[in-house]
Amino acid sequence: MREQVDLILEPQWILPIVPAEQVYEDCALVIHQGQIQALLPIAEAKRRYEANETLKLPNQVLIPGLINAHGHAAMTLLRGYADDLELNDWLENHIWPAESRWVSKDFVRDGTRHAIAEMIRSGTTCFSDSYFFPEVAAEVAVGAGIRMRVAFPVFEFPTAWGRNSDEYIHKGLALRDNFKSHELIDVAFAPHAPYTVEDKTFERIAMLSEELDAHIHLHLHEVAQEVQDSLKLHGVRPIERMEKLGILGPRTETVHMTQLIDTDIELLGRYNSSVIHCPKSNTKLASGICPVDKLRESNIRIALGTDGAASNNRLDMFSEMNAASLTAKINSQDPRSLNAFESLAMATIEGARIMGIDTKTGSLEVGKQADMISVDLGQIHSQPLFNVASQLVYACDSSQVTNSWVSGHQLLKNGELSTINEQELLAKSQEWANRIAGKA
Amino acid sequence: MREQVDLILEPQWILPIVPAEQVYEDCALVIHQGQIQALLPIAEAKRRYEANETLKLPNQVLIPGLINAHGHAAMTLLRGYADDLELNDWLENHIWPAESRWVSKDFVRDGTRHAIAEMIRSGTTCFSDSYFFPEVAAEVAVGAGIRMRVAFPVFEFPTAWGRNSDEYIHKGLALRDNFKSHELIDVAFAPHAPYTVEDKTFERIAMLSEELDAHIHLHLHEVAQEVQDSLKLHGVRPIERMEKLGILGPRTETVHMTQLIDTDIELLGRYNSSVIHCPKSNTKLASGICPVDKLRESNIRIALGTDGAASNNRLDMFSEMNAASLTAKINSQDPRSLNAFESLAMATIEGARIMGIDTKTGSLEVGKQADMISVDLGQIHSQPLFNVASQLVYACDSSQVTNSWVSGHQLLKNGELSTINEQELLAKSQEWANRIAGKA
Repeated sequence: MREQVDLILEPQWILPIVPAEQVYEDCALVIHQGQIQALLPIAEAKRRYEANETLKLPNQVLIPGLINAHGHAAMTLLRGYADDLELNDWLENHIWPAESRWVSKDFVRDGTRHAIAEMIRSGTTCFSDSYFFPEVAAEVAVGAGIRMRVAFPVFEFPTAWGRNSDEYIHKGLALRDNFKSHELIDVAFAPHAPYTVEDKTFERIAMLSEELDAHIHLHLHEVAQEVQDSLKLHGVRPIERMEKLGILGPRTETVHMTQLIDTDIELLGRYNSSVIHCPKSNTKLASGICPVDKLRESNIRIALGTDGAASNNRLDMFSEMNAASLTAKINSQDPRSLNAFESLAMATIEGARIMGIDTKTGSLEVGKQADMISVDLGQIHSQPLFNVASQLVYACDSSQVTNSWVSGHQLLKNGELSTINEQELLAKSQEWANRIAGKA
Repeated sequence: MREQVDLILEPQWILPIVPAEQVYEDCALVIHQGQIQALLPIAEAKRRYEANETLKLPNQVLIPGLINAHGHAAMTLLRGYADDLELNDWLENHIWPAESRWVSKDFVRDGTRHAIAEMIRSGTTCFSDSYFFPEVAAEVAVGAGIRMRVAFPVFEFPTAWGRNSDEYIHKGLALRDNFKSHELIDVAFAPHAPYTVEDKTFERIAMLSEELDAHIHLHLHEVAQEVQDSLKLHGVRPIERMEKLGILGPRTETVHMTQLIDTDIELLGRYNSSVIHCPKSNTKLASGICPVDKLRESNIRIALGTDGAASNNRLDMFSEMNAASLTAKINSQDPRSLNAFESLAMATIEGARIMGIDTKTGSLEVGKQADMISVDLGQIHSQPLFNVASQLVYACDSSQVTNSWVSGHQLLKNGELSTINEQELLAKSQEWANRIAGKA
């Protein structure tokens, strides 16, 4: 008597990420009630299981859904609004004024929906997001069926979402209560950066993080100026100040980290804090290159993020993996740096581990949620094929993602979004752009 | 009475590249007998011309076909064969042995056809190629209708294509005679590199180049070791040796140039020689970064190339433009470096100028050959739209190329190849990969 299950996938290859550096051929992934039930040879799967749906995926590889560990989804409405500018000019004369003029609940709803559609299409099944009105963004994510880490922002100064750090924290904690033990949503603190948040607020967040077992996600050592300013103002480097304020710890995710000296890396290691690397945003803004090799030598966990579409300008983890491997190689002057498997791990299981959700997602292991994507390797630019991992990182692009599932629920089906109306969304986004550009 | 013409294109935008930094809306491009006849407002085009075919391209931008100024097309059969390896290990233990075992006329025919199919799909309408059996590659290009610069290789040592430099040059000159004044094919000398070609051969090529008004295309200053070895062996840097041997001049195209000091740049400027920049290959092999900003300050022309698929692993000028802008910014620590328009110019008109074919191609100007592509900007990752040039370089990928024409002849029609049978080609390429990997 065969066991009844929901879904059996029969791709040409399965790259489970855990165990590391494995590529299985002629194997099936068995899904039941949103979870991975088995990964076994197709012939054996046929003997043991009877599925409501069996999907053959010839020429396709099945991998865990990609995890975008840092971004500002709603800023997708500002994609291409201001490029090729000096960093302060970009922020102070373009991005911040546009945000202060336009950011609202509607902006966040429409922008986040656009970002989620783009992320689903490009293979992301889980994203960490730090932006205003996170309660609105979280609702959109739930509606779209994608897994989301809400890293609610904390500043000292007023924005459309809050008046001061107390209010940001208050609203963020309310959001956390609302989504407590929600299957898709996980909530963390995102004190924006050392230069926008005061000592007492960092101390409060450190305490709350400890009490609530909540993660802390912050921009750190993004550009050289930030480090210099901290030395001038506080007499120490930003990460040293974070240590003093109790911010460093195993739940702490430091984003960017392009300006690192040995003592910074030593601190990360001592506190078991992690790094989120955004290679495309960091190179486009000329911020610097996160020294991935050195961090890895010190056993510091690194995940990958796209950052927002105003500085990338894609939310595409395929081009991010490619950029991660290429910048690691040029930065270390060693073409062996960050090989294809390592980049894939950074974009999947490492993201899950860093966010503390690796019991749920990040690899195709039995018992985890069925978060996975299929990628068509039959395209001309990914043929001929010698090595599946190489092809994914060095030759593929996200247009090859064919299907996507989160907890077994299909979000992309043969290249079409199942949970978002794309035409409606595109019309709304262009309306926003017209208004922002002063054309409407 | 309206003038009869072959084709009128009515895209939403036209980005002609020359004049620089212009984006026209609601304009038409008029094509007759393979040439650009007019670029004018759509309303005026309707009054003045009657076309055999009128093609509306809503949400699409029309730009000149991209020019891939350096590559080794047939090596596409080795895509992903050996990645993430130290450079000498990669070359000596993987690429060269595979080439010496497998390269033949058939390998070049099938590999070049695969590369051309990939290039057409990704928006390239002209490519420079340096590989064995160039006469076979040129035939494939003519059959496919793509514009090709054959840079025939010259080495001292024997390969499948020749025994010594005399024979390479002899065969190359015969090829040049065969394709003399061919509409699509242009032939140049490609003495491989300073470390594989002897002084007397360089001197002979310098003389022949002058006599025949033929270009010289060579790998130069690709990696630090090359410069160090030259200093040891010849007492001078490679480019200084090239100067002494008469190789530098306005017809000289130096490829890679990642290792440059001020005197190298001064030499390039003095002789009006040009540079072909391959940012993805250079970063993937950890060779170095070509200092685009410094070269531009010295008014040195720079074009863009993908290099071969064994070191990229794509032949995709969209990802190459993206990489060019991003590496320029990080290398110069200035986010204003190589803006989107400048990258687009590098991938079009600058390639044509460097190869000396800019009277024919590289921009959408009246009188030039009708070499152009249309790109769909309606995709979710290229919306909303504020800036067409930004979108092309920072948000698009080559899957958005919808149509391609060379001399008015359509090579890609609504995303389908018109001159190459893609299924047949893919089957052949996988057969090669199986044989090379020892599976068949």
